Amino acid sequence: MSKIDWVGFDGDDTLWKSEDYYRAAEAAFEQIVGHYIDLSDKRTAQHLLAVERRNLRIFGYGAKGMMLSMIESAIELTEERISARHVQDIIAIGRATLDHPVELIEGIREAVAAIAAAHNIVLITKGDLFHQEAKIVQSGLSDLFHRIEVVSEKDTPTYTRVLRELDVVPEHFAMIGNSLRSDIAPIVGLGGWGIHMPYHVTWAHEAEHDLADNTPRLLQVEAASELPTALAKIEATVVDA
Amino acid sequence: MSKIDWVGFDGDDTLWKSEDYYRAAEAAFEQIVGHYIDLSDKRTAQHLLAVERRNLRIFGYGAKGMMLSMIESAIELTEERISARHVQDIIAIGRATLDHPVELIEGIREAVAAIAAAHNIVLITKGDLFHQEAKIVQSGLSDLFHRIEVVSEKDTPTYTRVLRELDVVPEHFAMIGNSLRSDIAPIVGLGGWGIHMPYHVTWAHEAEHDLADNTPRLLQVEAASELPTALAKIEATVVDA
Repeated sequence: MSKIDWVGFDGDDTLWKSEDYYRAAEAAFEQIVGHYIDLSDKRTAQHLLAVERRNLRIFGYGAKGMMLSMIESAIELTEERISARHVQDIIAIGRATLDHPVELIEGIREAVAAIAAAHNIVLITKGDLFHQEAKIVQSGLSDLFHRIEVVSEKDTPTYTRVLRELDVVPEHFAMIGNSLRSDIAPIVGLGGWGIHMPYHVTWAHEAEHDLADNTPRLLQVEAASELPTALAKIEATVVDA
Repeated sequence: MSKIDWVGFDGDDTLWKSEDYYRAAEAAFEQIVGHYIDLSDKRTAQHLLAVERRNLRIFGYGAKGMMLSMIESAIELTEERISARHVQDIIAIGRATLDHPVELIEGIREAVAAIAAAHNIVLITKGDLFHQEAKIVQSGLSDLFHRIEVVSEKDTPTYTRVLRELDVVPEHFAMIGNSLRSDIAPIVGLGGWGIHMPYHVTWAHEAEHDLADNTPRLLQVEAASELPTALAKIEATVVDA
């Protein structure tokens, strides 16, 4: 009998590529704004991030909120000079972000299948419900998961609720994800296990966390193929305890 | 022992007022577009509905999708003449729609409490996850519900999944809501029970349905105060069957 009853997986940049598309969207946004202002002082990206953060409280995460923040940011940066056609171009950027093909992270299908063979697995992903559901379907991975939870924020209250609904104590739960802030810190804080699998790019908002370097119950892997072994290490530790 | 094991409630325009805010948003939108085109031919509202419907596939339901569709519709209706300031005004309309206070439907708190005393109750609401969660919290009703499901579409596959997760057969499930299309038709089609409580306004998209006038297992009430009695009637029928 496994000591880790449930294993959680993040979606964006853990199962499938995501941040690359948002970065491409930001580059396209800067190009549009560049028709009106000098981009050399780097303030465009900073301004967009500031608008996105102030709007999180009312828009939540996801591409639709990004589109609206981009339009607001462009209007402010251009001092209301942006044309209707360029606003339409910004909407087209967001539409492309919502409609991009789902590309799986290398080796993740095999890793998920291997872990699902010995554990209950749950997908815990945040953002826009409609977009996340579309990506889950397109990923072809949904049948492997015993539960799927699309949540609006990945913080301690949310994980507490999800673990209660799964009827699992944190000590017997491991979470796999690319974001220390959203996937790892809340679970480790609750007494659970984290497996951090960094992605090559991280949104500035997700890069902020207050985990210490020597955090207990936290493992790191470099590739999806290392996930089953990392989980086995955790199991050995739980059994030994 | 109750024969109706679970009772489902819709959120928007069943627990709390919603469509009024969307209607006010549409009126404000028309006023903005009226700076550029003649509104007397009524095509503004029709054009917006057409844009919203073509965008449902990619944006899903909710106020953020409405905002983006309004911006697109305004750009098209004004033939790209709309100013950045007026685009900002459209975003302000949507922001007000997302941020409006939650006003409960008259008598609904008492009806929900009475039904919760004898049944498991589940809130099944569709739309933007972030906005719906905010409204649930602000409604003050969330503690009465045994389960809360925010879904992206209210159709037969969604209800089939939710009922399976609740471990209830349709014959022992009743759904209460204002939309024949989204709340009643799929459940009655599955063999469950519907209690229709019309709201004084209905979005054109929700008004379309193909329920016959003499649909079995469908009751109608005029006010929330009639809900417990309607449910008792259903119970009597199930027991008699």
